[in-house]
This record gives sequence, structure tokens and C-alpha cells, in this order.
Amino acid sequence: MNLSDLQRALDDFATERDWHRFHNPKNLAMALTNEVGELVEIFQWLTFDQAATIMEDAHHAEQVRSELADVLAYLLQLANILGVDMATALHDKMTVNARRFPIPLTQGQAAEYGQL
Amino acid sequence: MNLSDLQRALDDFATERDWHRFHNPKNLAMALTNEVGELVEIFQWLTFDQAATIMEDAHHAEQVRSELADVLAYLLQLANILGVDMATALHDKMTVNARRFPIPLTQGQAAEYGQL
Amino acid sequence: MNLSDLQRALDDFATERDWHRFHNPKNLAMALTNEVGELVEIFQWLTFDQAATIMEDAHHAEQVRSELADVLAYLLQLANILGVDMATALHDKMTVNARRFPIPLTQGQAAEYGQL
Amino acid sequence: MNLSDLQRALDDFATERDWHRFHNPKNLAMALTNEVGELVEIFQWLTFDQAATIMEDAHHAEQVRSELADVLAYLLQLANILGVDMATALHDKMTVNARRFPIPLTQGQAAEYGQL
Repeated sequence: MNLSDLQRALDDFATERDWHRFHNPKNLAMALTNEVGELVEIFQWLTFDQAATIMEDAHHAEQVRSELADVLAYLLQLANILGVDMATALHDKMTVNARRFPIPLTQGQAAEYGQL
Repeated sequence: MNLSDLQRALDDFATERDWHRFHNPKNLAMALTNEVGELVEIFQWLTFDQAATIMEDAHHAEQVRSELADVLAYLLQLANILGVDMATALHDKMTVNARRFPIPLTQGQAAEYGQL
Repeated sequence: MNLSDLQRALDDFATERDWHRFHNPKNLAMALTNEVGELVEIFQWLTFDQAATIMEDAHHAEQVRSELADVLAYLLQLANILGVDMATALHDKMTVNARRFPIPLTQGQAAEYGQL
Repeated sequence: MNLSDLQRALDDFATERDWHRFHNPKNLAMALTNEVGELVEIFQWLTFDQAATIMEDAHHAEQVRSELADVLAYLLQLANILGVDMATALHDKMTVNARRFPIPLTQGQAAEYGQL
């Protein structure tokens, strides 16, 4: 599905419920923080192996999908009120990063070069 | 642009740079936390009015776009290693939320009913 | 109450419950993230005025106190396993900041100079 | 050092610099989020072993101490404007948790019982 369409659908959803009165960037950035916290909570006590295989359990898989969706929903709503098209913003960032992290130089060197 | 294509492009980007060895869900959830912190930093001392008009300043607008893109990039990479198609996950969540927050009941009542 | 004593009390609490096996810095940093998210959630939809007067309501006041305590508890546990005495660390930081933000220069200029 | 004295010292520090005009609970909760993000960043790509031994490296140790102090500084400033004495709040929370997680029952069972 088209990312711009998803942004628009979320905007309509908020408009229909008169939620835009709460949608200042500060408020939405805070809501995003809170949702990331809920996503992080799922993984916080797991070993790397447990984290990597979490989707094998149907209950946890549903939880993960739900929290990922909440994070995306608030991120897109924040982008909406700031007038940012996220597909374009991500595309631009990837172009910058492709130059910043050229392939032969950075292979396996995330620690030295940082990441995205 | 198609959200699934963006997820795939980020996956290729990481593969080409041998970054998947760092991409455990715990690590990516932490990277996501850090990027959200950088996004929040932009808005933390602003008034509501300053936050709502931040995109009028070209320098701040570019900063905001860049941080929003970083958050999306890590969210999609986390979804990638968990095998979650984010367009489907968000669509499912919106269906659930449309039932949870029916239009006539919730108008302007975010405080009472919570949100997304 | 002495901060070092509080750190020690939390350490004993974890030892008695055999929780140290979960207390890797990554795990505790994630738990801290999650608790900050819960604290942020209380304030996310409030206006500045509502946020500033939240303690006048007994129920919310108790919620705020509880979440603040959770954040401090995880921060001190993280400091414990890293062997950091937080009273000393904060004292050192305040000495640095007193030089970085001299009084006559920075008055009312947080936006220009950043903060702590 | 006494935790209440630290809270008071931070309050004086902010007063002397006229920073209280920025210290709404929303703003300070956001600043706390940002500082936690910087703390998390240090650990995000590390293995459990690397994270557990990070203080053996003098440069990283100083970074960790500095970020831990920043998190505590904003947490205490947030508590200050909310009128919360953190030593009391933490003591009360530990009393609640001692009942919630009795020693013989919970040993080694954090996954089942949750934590703090």
C-alpha cells in the first residue's frame, strides 16, 4: 500500500473524530515516545535468541505487530501535521546515507561508522 | 511510494553493508528509541505555537524531515527482521481502532477514551 | 535519604529475588525507556496549564509519583551494575555545567545555549 | 549525598539561570526522553558481554557516567516542579514492590511476574 495514502487515511481518521485539536507536534512526539516504550517493553528481558524468534509464538507475534503499528500510526500523524511526506523524506535520507556509507568501505563496520 | 517496497529497499541497503549482524530486535528497538529521542529534542523547549510553526524555518524543517526519516528507517528495519509487513499491520490496527473509537461517540473526547 | 543507600537497597532487593541474571545494561536501559514512556503518557495530551497543575488531583498525583519512582528505580539499578555512584556522577556533571552555563551569560537563554 | 539536597541544588541552579520558564512538566518529560535516548545510544549495537564490560574502557566509562547524570538531572528537575520528594516516592514504591514480589515466590521468575 502507498505510504502517502496511509498518511491521508490516518488524517481522515483523526478529522472524523475531532482529534486534531490534540495533535500539536509536542503531543504527538510524546505519544510516539510512549508507543516506542510499549514496543521496547516486549523485548526488554529477552535474550538475543528469544528476541530473534519471538514471532514463532502467535500471541507475542500479535502483540509485536500491534505495537509496531501504533508506532507507525503516531509517526505518520506527526508527519501529517508537519506537512511531511514520509516516502519522500525516507527516500532522500537513503540517498544521503548511500553516499555516507559507501558499500565497500563500511561492510561490517557499523561500530566504527555508526548507522543510518 | 509503496511501503513494502521501502521495507525491501532498506533490507537491501543493510544486506549490502553487512549490517544484518547487528540487527537483533533488541538492538533495533534501542536504535529506534535513540532516534525518537533526537526527534523529541527538536521540540522539547518549544511552546505549542513554536512547535506548530516549526516548518516555516527552512533549517528546522530539514532537521525535522531528517529525524522523522531516521525514525521510520529504524522502525521498518525492525519490522523487516520480525517479518512484519507494516502496511498490513497498520491497516489491521486501523480496522480495530475504527471499531474501538466509533465516530459519534468519541468526537473531541480523546482524554476520556484514550487514542490509537 | 542518602542516594548511595538507595542504590544499595535496590541492589539488595534485586539480589534477594535473583533478578541480577536479567540485569544486563541493555536490558535495564530498555526497561528505563519503557518506564519513561509510561511517565510521558500521563502528560502527552495535556495543555501546559493542565500539566503544571496535575498534582492538584489526588489520583493523578499518585500516578505521577509512582511513575517517577519507577524511572528512578531503573536508573539506579542500571547505575548499580555499571558501578556508578550517582550522587558523585551528578555532582561532577553540575560542576561541569556551572562552568558551561555561567550565570550572567545564560539567564533566560536556554534556547540559544541548550541546557544540562 | 542526600537526594533531597540534590533536588534542591538543581532547583537553585535553574533559578539562577532563569530556566524555570522552560520547566513545564511536558518540556522536562521530553528532555528526559531525549537524555534516555542518548544513554541508550551508547549500548544499542553492543553485545551483552560488551555492554557488561563497558566501564573497563575509560572513555566509554566517562560517557556512561555523563549520560546517567543527565538522565538523573532531568528526572529530579521534573520531580521538583511537580513537588515530589524522590527519596520518599522511591521508598514508598519499594514498600509496594516488596509486597508485590515476595522473596520466595519470585526468585528467578521475572519473566512470569514482571518487575518493579
